[in-house]
Amino acid sequence: MKEIKRIIAVSSGKGGVGKSLVSSTLALALAKRGYKVGLFDLDFTSPSTHLILGISGVQPKEDKGIVPPEVHGLKYMSITYYSGDLAAPLRGADVSNALLELLSVTLWGRLDFLVLDMPPGIGDVTLDLIRLLPTAEFLIVTTSSELAFETVKKLAGLLVELKVPFLGVVENMKMDKSREIRLKTEKLGLRFLTGIPYDPRIESALGSGNNLLRTKLGREIGLLASEI
Amino acid sequence: MKEIKRIIAVSSGKGGVGKSLVSSTLALALAKRGYKVGLFDLDFTSPSTHLILGISGVQPKEDKGIVPPEVHGLKYMSITYYSGDLAAPLRGADVSNALLELLSVTLWGRLDFLVLDMPPGIGDVTLDLIRLLPTAEFLIVTTSSELAFETVKKLAGLLVELKVPFLGVVENMKMDKSREIRLKTEKLGLRFLTGIPYDPRIESALGSGNNLLRTKLGREIGLLASEI
Repeated sequence: MKEIKRIIAVSSGKGGVGKSLVSSTLALALAKRGYKVGLFDLDFTSPSTHLILGISGVQPKEDKGIVPPEVHGLKYMSITYYSGDLAAPLRGADVSNALLELLSVTLWGRLDFLVLDMPPGIGDVTLDLIRLLPTAEFLIVTTSSELAFETVKKLAGLLVELKVPFLGVVENMKMDKSREIRLKTEKLGLRFLTGIPYDPRIESALGSGNNLLRTKLGREIGLLASEI
Repeated sequence: MKEIKRIIAVSSGKGGVGKSLVSSTLALALAKRGYKVGLFDLDFTSPSTHLILGISGVQPKEDKGIVPPEVHGLKYMSITYYSGDLAAPLRGADVSNALLELLSVTLWGRLDFLVLDMPPGIGDVTLDLIRLLPTAEFLIVTTSSELAFETVKKLAGLLVELKVPFLGVVENMKMDKSREIRLKTEKLGLRFLTGIPYDPRIESALGSGNNLLRTKLGREIGLLASEI
């Protein structure tokens, strides 16, 4: 892990806010800009980056550790390589141990960015990651809904309390131009990164990295990738 | 728990699909129809039924057990009574033990329905609940997105394998009249309960049970409450 310059943990207070879309697209956009990028899907609650990026038919190799396959210019790892498409009813502590072991035995090589798709909320994996990788910078995704932002407050509160590096908040699926979430974020003393308009074309872009980069989300995340 | 006729566990493969909206509105709609109803928010990952129903300023009483307050004609319990609005970074097993203890010491009295707002996905709480309350009937909420439905397959697969009673699937936030999710659900051999159109008025109805019952979601769930 010492050859990795920056680790970006894409997280959310609750699920369904587009966290995996943001993490996948951010990794793609950084790779398009010439950076060496890894993407690791740690969201055992609903791993979906492989569906988002249309990754199938590739496997990591084992050679004194696990060598992640290169797909779309990224080094890619996911819990699904080990759980398959089966339900994985593991107990919390088992999941966390398994994921963190996978993280530590993966041979990423030299990377400019490792993007982690975290499980939503504040669970075992998040707590262990903070402890093991204290330089990981958190990016929190929310929607415009009060229900999602309430959970951002909790997660951000914990991260600030634990002095975890905090990159900022992304507001996804905006239905209007309201500045409410931006203002609320700044009121918490946190950086607001960008607001992404809802784009019905996302669903049909699933499975194609290039199509994703052409959606409104792709364009906003592309701008973000130039700034972080 | 023996005085409870039916337990309905409202679950989802992933978060953000409207599970808590469905569970809260279902409990309200059943109560409106004259049933004795309890609602228990077990979703420690992002408890939100109190925000959805606008419940504040009431507390359970302790009297040889925990007596849930009555709000909007429901007996209401939530993990937030014990975690408050603070982040609760508990380990998986601790959360599950705490919630199940809370469930077992709560004095619901005689109920026609106890509606459980489950954490999303297949975690410790879900596994323990299946073991402890084998008669609980699962209702799974999804959106129209492939990403959400993929996770329904996994959860439903596990429930069927464990021979858990299965009420059916609710498709939420439909943006069009597509029958795709209905057909996919039926292809899995599962019952499709209803499709709920996306309604932008939901956000402003949050906090008011009566306003929620007047949204498209409220009307569809009202019909469902008459049928189950």
